[in-house]
Amino acid sequence: MQVQVISSVNEASSAQFVHKTAIIIDVLRATSSIITALAAGSSGVVPVETVMEARAAQQEGDLLCGERFCKKIAGFDLGNSPDELLLNSVKDRRVILTTTNGTRAIHKSTRADYVLVAALLNASACAKAAVDLRRDVVILCAGSHDEFAIEDGLCAGLLLSRMQERGSAPLEMDDFGLAMLSLYQERANDIKETIRKGATGKRLLKLGMGRDIDLCSEVDTFAGVPRLQANGDTLICSCS
Amino acid sequence: MQVQVISSVNEASSAQFVHKTAIIIDVLRATSSIITALAAGSSGVVPVETVMEARAAQQEGDLLCGERFCKKIAGFDLGNSPDELLLNSVKDRRVILTTTNGTRAIHKSTRADYVLVAALLNASACAKAAVDLRRDVVILCAGSHDEFAIEDGLCAGLLLSRMQERGSAPLEMDDFGLAMLSLYQERANDIKETIRKGATGKRLLKLGMGRDIDLCSEVDTFAGVPRLQANGDTLICSCS
Repeated sequence: MQVQVISSVNEASSAQFVHKTAIIIDVLRATSSIITALAAGSSGVVPVETVMEARAAQQEGDLLCGERFCKKIAGFDLGNSPDELLLNSVKDRRVILTTTNGTRAIHKSTRADYVLVAALLNASACAKAAVDLRRDVVILCAGSHDEFAIEDGLCAGLLLSRMQERGSAPLEMDDFGLAMLSLYQERANDIKETIRKGATGKRLLKLGMGRDIDLCSEVDTFAGVPRLQANGDTLICSCS
Repeated sequence: MQVQVISSVNEASSAQFVHKTAIIIDVLRATSSIITALAAGSSGVVPVETVMEARAAQQEGDLLCGERFCKKIAGFDLGNSPDELLLNSVKDRRVILTTTNGTRAIHKSTRADYVLVAALLNASACAKAAVDLRRDVVILCAGSHDEFAIEDGLCAGLLLSRMQERGSAPLEMDDFGLAMLSLYQERANDIKETIRKGATGKRLLKLGMGRDIDLCSEVDTFAGVPRLQANGDTLICSCS
């Protein structure tokens, strides 16, 4: 099984995903939010690229969530925050989510055979799902402000480590994958501390959102692996 | 001191280097070749971007060296190989060098206040030189085939590690720099093995150039730090 790791959404082209399993990572915070919302009983998360699309997608009962530059969008119900999602009732409601990089990364990968949503929160379950799907894999680290984000790299390395343990044949990784595996192995016991040193971690701490870092730094809290699926014209993430 | 690390030459824009010290890394093999040629007594290495420029720059006594896709260019004296440079007499001769990524990376950085040429071979000396120059630093990993190359990332991490030891104030690294520092720390005792697992390492092994990997994997063999300087219209690397 071949695995390619892409360092940020700007580095990805949609053709790279054809015939592959795509794994999208945006630890701080889009994919952590999607996993958390579904674990809390949301009926599905609709990732959209723009504020306008978010408003257009909203139906009665839906929660409108999203951020620009780490802050909640004016008029939206919630930001892009696992902490807020846990404090509000999302049970049996759809979440419409737009974020700077994460939802854009999900849309970039739609030519893949399967699109899985990963974060530290569900890494082992996601690694198992990817191995079971028996396709070559492209791991897309969404990044932040068009640049590599260390928390996404850590999560990519954790996925690779788990996939290596699970798979029957050795993984063939590209150079960036090899580097991310080493990053994870070197920092495995200091994940939260490493994330707090990264650019997005520092920005969230400054904005008083340290609780989101705590939540998003947890490994394997959830067993659900959200998949992107088409429901008519709407793309929706769910664990079913 | 702020340090930014760029993952491949395609990610770099020349404006990023203004007022900075640029450190250019292409372990396999352009910067290792430049350092080796100068250590062997070459009077200077002229990095050029194209085969045509190489031929135009050649004066009597100069050695014409370069590669495309790891192979020597037809009609050139030598490839881009530290091994070949050591086996031939470069003493007091200029080397005109064109390579796929490394020489392109050097030209991309010319708006920097200082341009230093680094590889594993001179990492500690280069880290000291960069700290002494007291500018913010941009480390450009040239990469291979427009992608990140693990040997360049390892070298960036080694430089960061040495700069941290040398500097009086803590380094402020971007997320990619933090990741490369961890990569180096995790692989410090297996440098050659790691390089052999990377895409360029595998390609060189297949082409029978394993000896170049051995030479380029050595740490701190040389104390010279080549700098790019203008000599009239010609840009030339030398340790003077």
